[in-house]
Amino acid sequence: MADSTRTRRALDLNEATAVLARTPATLDAMLRGLPDGWIQAHEGGETWSPFDVIGHLIQGEQTDWVPRARIILEHGEARTFDKFDRFAQFELSRGRTLDSLLDEFSMLRRASLRDLAALEITDADLDRRGTHPFFGAVTLGQLLATWVAHDLDHVIQVARVIARQYSDAVGPWRAYLRVISGEQG
Amino acid sequence: MADSTRTRRALDLNEATAVLARTPATLDAMLRGLPDGWIQAHEGGETWSPFDVIGHLIQGEQTDWVPRARIILEHGEARTFDKFDRFAQFELSRGRTLDSLLDEFSMLRRASLRDLAALEITDADLDRRGTHPFFGAVTLGQLLATWVAHDLDHVIQVARVIARQYSDAVGPWRAYLRVISGEQG
Repeated sequence: MADSTRTRRALDLNEATAVLARTPATLDAMLRGLPDGWIQAHEGGETWSPFDVIGHLIQGEQTDWVPRARIILEHGEARTFDKFDRFAQFELSRGRTLDSLLDEFSMLRRASLRDLAALEITDADLDRRGTHPFFGAVTLGQLLATWVAHDLDHVIQVARVIARQYSDAVGPWRAYLRVISGEQG
Repeated sequence: MADSTRTRRALDLNEATAVLARTPATLDAMLRGLPDGWIQAHEGGETWSPFDVIGHLIQGEQTDWVPRARIILEHGEARTFDKFDRFAQFELSRGRTLDSLLDEFSMLRRASLRDLAALEITDADLDRRGTHPFFGAVTLGQLLATWVAHDLDHVIQVARVIARQYSDAVGPWRAYLRVISGEQG
C-alpha cells in the first residue's frame, strides 16, 4: 500500500462506524472488574478518572454526535449546535457503578449507530454544513470523523491515566515508555 | 480518596496482573474485524501499524517479561538480561493474519500470567535486583510495573495511529482533540 494512504484517510462511513461500534467493548475489556484504585485514578488536579470518562462518553451519545448530525441535515447552517457540557457527567454519574455506566454507554452507542444508519447519509451529504458555536462552519463529514477521533482520544486517556500511576514504579524504564516520558505525545 | 493516592501507585501484584490480564481482550475488541485500512495504517516513516504492534507484544511474551523475571529470581545481578529485539516482529508476523496474531498474544499472555503466579513472588522479592543491558541495576518490581505500562503504551499507540488518520478529516475540531493536536501528549 502506498505510504500516503497509510497515514491520512478521508472519512469513509463504513470505516468510521467500524471503529465507533468497537469502542464500548474496548473500554469494557479494559475496565470492567479492574480494582477500584485504577478506576478512580487520575492525573492530578481537575483531570478525569476512567470512571469520569465513561460518563462523558454517555453524555456525548445523548447530546452531541447524532443530535448534531440531525441539526445539519434538518437545518443546515441556520441553527447553531447546542454547546456541549463537558462537565455534565459529574452529576450524571453520581452514585452509579462503573458497570452500569459501561452498560449504558454500550446500549446508547448501539442506538446511535442505528439512528445514524437510518439517516441514510450519502457521500454528498458529508459536505453539508452546520454551524459550530465556536468554529463556525463545519461539515457533517468533519463531525463524524471527530466522533471517531474523540472516542480514541478517550481510550488513550483511560490507558494513560492508568499507566502514569506507575511513573515512579517503573524506575529507569521511564525513558523507554512514551506514555510516561511524554515524548512525541 | 486522598489526591496523592490517585496519581501515583506503588506496584501491587494483584493490581498489575488485573491490567495485564485485560490487554489481549482490549486489543481484540479494538482490532478484530476492523477494515484492513485501519490495521495497516501507521504514522509515517518507520512507525508501526496496529498489525506490527501485536507482533511486538507476542515477542515480549516470548523473550522479555517472564524470562527476565526468572533471570532476576535465579541469577540476581550476575546475569545481564538478553537485549530485547524491537524489530523481531517483522519476521515473526510475515504472512500471518491479524486474527491469528491476536489469538497467539492472548494464549501467550495467559501462559505468562500462569508462569508469573507459579513464581510465587513475595513483596520482598519485588526489591530483588537484576542487570539491564543499558540501565544497569533494576528491580523485579520495576520490571513488572514496566510490563503494565508497556502494554498501555501500545494500546495508546494503536488508538493514536487510527485516530491520526483523521487528522485532516476532522477539520477545525483538531484543536479539541489532544490525540491530533499533540498537546500535553
